[in-house]
Amino acid sequence: MEAKASQNAGRVMDGPINPMVTPLLTDLYQFTMAYAYWKAGKHNERAVFDLYFRKNPFGGEFTVFAGLEECIKLIANFKLTEEEVSFIYKSLPGSCEEGFLNYLREIDCSDVEVYAISEGTVVFPKVPLLRLEGPVAVVQLLETPVLNLVNFASLVTTNAARHRLVAGQSKMLFEFGLRRAQGPDGAIGASKYCYIGGFDATSNVAAGRLFGIPLRGTHSHAFVSSFMSPDEILERSLCSSDDSSTCEDFVTLVHSWLSKMQWLKSLGGIFGETNQSELAAFISYALAFPNNFLALVDTYDVIRSGVPNFCAVALALSDLGYRAVGIRLDSGDLAYLSSEARKIFHTIEKELGVPGFGKMIITASNDLNEETLDALRKQGHEVDCFGIGTYLVTCYAQAALGCVFKLVEINNQPRIKLSEDVSKVSIPCKKRCYRLYGKEGYSLVDIMTGENEPCPKVGERILCRHPFSESKRAYVVPKRVEELFKCYWPGKSGKLREELPALKDIRDHCIKQLEQMRPDHIRRLNPTPYKVSVSAKLYDFIHFLWLNEAPVGELQ
Amino acid sequence: MEAKASQNAGRVMDGPINPMVTPLLTDLYQFTMAYAYWKAGKHNERAVFDLYFRKNPFGGEFTVFAGLEECIKLIANFKLTEEEVSFIYKSLPGSCEEGFLNYLREIDCSDVEVYAISEGTVVFPKVPLLRLEGPVAVVQLLETPVLNLVNFASLVTTNAARHRLVAGQSKMLFEFGLRRAQGPDGAIGASKYCYIGGFDATSNVAAGRLFGIPLRGTHSHAFVSSFMSPDEILERSLCSSDDSSTCEDFVTLVHSWLSKMQWLKSLGGIFGETNQSELAAFISYALAFPNNFLALVDTYDVIRSGVPNFCAVALALSDLGYRAVGIRLDSGDLAYLSSEARKIFHTIEKELGVPGFGKMIITASNDLNEETLDALRKQGHEVDCFGIGTYLVTCYAQAALGCVFKLVEINNQPRIKLSEDVSKVSIPCKKRCYRLYGKEGYSLVDIMTGENEPCPKVGERILCRHPFSESKRAYVVPKRVEELFKCYWPGKSGKLREELPALKDIRDHCIKQLEQMRPDHIRRLNPTPYKVSVSAKLYDFIHFLWLNEAPVGELQ
Repeated sequence: MEAKASQNAGRVMDGPINPMVTPLLTDLYQFTMAYAYWKAGKHNERAVFDLYFRKNPFGGEFTVFAGLEECIKLIANFKLTEEEVSFIYKSLPGSCEEGFLNYLREIDCSDVEVYAISEGTVVFPKVPLLRLEGPVAVVQLLETPVLNLVNFASLVTTNAARHRLVAGQSKMLFEFGLRRAQGPDGAIGASKYCYIGGFDATSNVAAGRLFGIPLRGTHSHAFVSSFMSPDEILERSLCSSDDSSTCEDFVTLVHSWLSKMQWLKSLGGIFGETNQSELAAFISYALAFPNNFLALVDTYDVIRSGVPNFCAVALALSDLGYRAVGIRLDSGDLAYLSSEARKIFHTIEKELGVPGFGKMIITASNDLNEETLDALRKQGHEVDCFGIGTYLVTCYAQAALGCVFKLVEINNQPRIKLSEDVSKVSIPCKKRCYRLYGKEGYSLVDIMTGENEPCPKVGERILCRHPFSESKRAYVVPKRVEELFKCYWPGKSGKLREELPALKDIRDHCIKQLEQMRPDHIRRLNPTPYKVSVSAKLYDFIHFLWLNEAPVGELQ
Repeated sequence: MEAKASQNAGRVMDGPINPMVTPLLTDLYQFTMAYAYWKAGKHNERAVFDLYFRKNPFGGEFTVFAGLEECIKLIANFKLTEEEVSFIYKSLPGSCEEGFLNYLREIDCSDVEVYAISEGTVVFPKVPLLRLEGPVAVVQLLETPVLNLVNFASLVTTNAARHRLVAGQSKMLFEFGLRRAQGPDGAIGASKYCYIGGFDATSNVAAGRLFGIPLRGTHSHAFVSSFMSPDEILERSLCSSDDSSTCEDFVTLVHSWLSKMQWLKSLGGIFGETNQSELAAFISYALAFPNNFLALVDTYDVIRSGVPNFCAVALALSDLGYRAVGIRLDSGDLAYLSSEARKIFHTIEKELGVPGFGKMIITASNDLNEETLDALRKQGHEVDCFGIGTYLVTCYAQAALGCVFKLVEINNQPRIKLSEDVSKVSIPCKKRCYRLYGKEGYSLVDIMTGENEPCPKVGERILCRHPFSESKRAYVVPKRVEELFKCYWPGKSGKLREELPALKDIRDHCIKQLEQMRPDHIRRLNPTPYKVSVSAKLYDFIHFLWLNEAPVGELQ
């Protein structure tokens, strides 16, 4: 990959993770508009755009903002190559003037300012996640890629956070979605953002390498079916855990445990003939990873074959001082099967005196989603770790977030976008955004004000108004006031800007944010909407502009 | 981007489009299994895997296969770098032997054979799309990336094809999904595969450059709101289309047309005061693209402002010999608004004697999907082109396709994967697949046979059996027999292999395939399932293996 880098405050910033993220990753109309702006001599007019969404996803009342780091990396490295310029020239309809190509060659984001809410923050409809200010033609070019980088990132982070909330803090959550994700970096992005949203690990090796996310994985059904019987295992010796001795025939040791278990009355005689290809696969896997033996037990029959085969191998490993990790279930009734498996593990711990055997880790991974996690929790189960794929990474319940990017000011003139649908009216003006906290430590309301209004003060009463509904308003006396925007890209101004935090820190921030939410805002069933408001002054200005712009209808 | 290439039959093959597609884009368990296979001396055992899906997406009865080219490019370039090898070493649980690292350093796909159905073919459940044969450890490493590359590609191609079927052949379809897609290459992939599925163009400039897909786009609402009034337009002159004269004040010319239209009785006096910022934006856009004037007319009020402003600019352009392209609607009742706009265009053509004005192109682009296209068609409308985004590219109606990758043979031993759910039982054996055609030219049934069975012959009666249901069977006398698998990667064997066709050819193949389908298989409502069968010999063998492998239950 070509190193793409730009100089900012003496520091070189890497380009986006995916080298396909270039200034061409935008809609053609951004370039046709750039040409029209340039032709009109308007391209350098200073414009302010807000990026925000109108509705929380998944029927919930919160969203987690993510994707900021990739946006800043795009912006820091925004520069068209000569080849890209000539491609744009060929792609514009009709012929464009040579001077425009010179303009394209020169543009970068040194004159763009980016204010944003920090990545991993819980956010709400209408409050801008990013505010981009700069020459109108350049900021428009950024519209599409920035929306692309924020929309899926925020959606899948929110999805992960929702899975974490329903699974509970005590469970381990693994993202296993690579094979079903929407393309290669749909998968890599999902791995990254699910980690931010509270997952513990991924199966995706590329994501592990790119981001340092912990990796998990053992073996598949195909591994099990690729064996015929333990007879084919030629190298059968295994050193003990402390290297003090060697078991010359581990296969025979496993067989002897299988026989012993068959006669264990407390297991109720469920152990008959187990599947031999499965047994061979488990033994081979244990010989390769004696310290990390975790077996997929549902290729044939979980209770009558998979679990007994696992237990026999685990007991043999235990003889040599190794401790098996556990089992994975990938089909069937996970509540029932996990409980039955747990009973067997407990019985073995008790009857055969193997300490800790009852605590074998049970992982489950069969088309899980929020609903099945919730149903499992209600039924009761013995699963310790969940591996979640398709529904998580493709955001199956709602495959897109609808962030938009709206012009709110140009040449210091506030602009409003009207719509017959009130929820689609944009909130004009370059704004500041605050989160106001109450005495219990929970946040009460977000409030947007004009850029030059005074900051809400702790202990002072402030009127918070619904931006569009006249009757909805409330006085708030905040115990704490948090300004939501930070400057992430000052361009050439030399101002101090926020550093991009490490992935782990974004994840910690997200987890902490969710812990601090009032529980009724984030619950699954009938969550309470969080309040988003504007200052009285901004309210009045919105409605002044609205009346000014809206045509007076005529009924016929 | 680093050039990744490998030599095959004297030809260097490029790597996958996305440089993030490397051998590490796989599940960790593929590497843990590789180590376990290697430890057991089993890694070079020859295995055959089938890639197939179990259920058509979107409630339909067909799927379009796509993603093959990317799979072959991955396979052709499959080689671990030293840095990747050491990352795998660090990632495996416990310590692994040095010899395994040497093995990893050496693996490539020179000993892998890939047979596949050609890209763009209409396909059905259970019939393998790809058959990979090679050393078990290597082919397993390919499982995850190949599934990733096929799943979304086939899903979104199918989605595009469904949109094309419901829109009808006479409409133009544009893919406008970049901003809402699942990440950067979710977008680029969608652009590519929607084109294969029958779309005509994309807004995504990067996809246009990568694949040569036609590009479309004009301007946004923000462009409209960025203007205040025509007074701010300083450069007002416009040369005539044939360069014979210059209009010194195009703005005044437009204004004069607006006035004329206000007095046009047949327009029913709907033209009053139009929005001046919109008018300024349209004039500026027309000055930049006099040959390609297409205006977004719904920023304020389509019928009372957008359309009249458009018409005035289009008429002024017409005075100078230019022909405007048309309008875009991005909100509201598209059936009503497009019909009203069309009426106005016709009235102007007739009343003002402007030939062709009635044929202005009307593009619509407001959260469209299969259902809205269908509803519009039933209502009647005047839209010529549809721009489709979110629902198309994220496959909102069903965000994932469930292709699986199953071991069907190892060391010449057929393998079957059982499941309590019959639809999940795999079809064992290395197989051949045929499509049998009837006398009307439609395909009747797909049939799978063992590798060494004779090929079905034209005019000879053949028994086609449902793979799992004893009573479902039918005799077929094919008028044409098509072998579905072609060899796309013979590795070192030096055999001739299929060339990867150009994107345009894949698209043509897909369109032709859909034209050849019996209409009831591809209709939206209650489509007829297409029949997929096995030969009598393969049927008997499947059920022999099944009985052999399945444990006999015991009711308690």
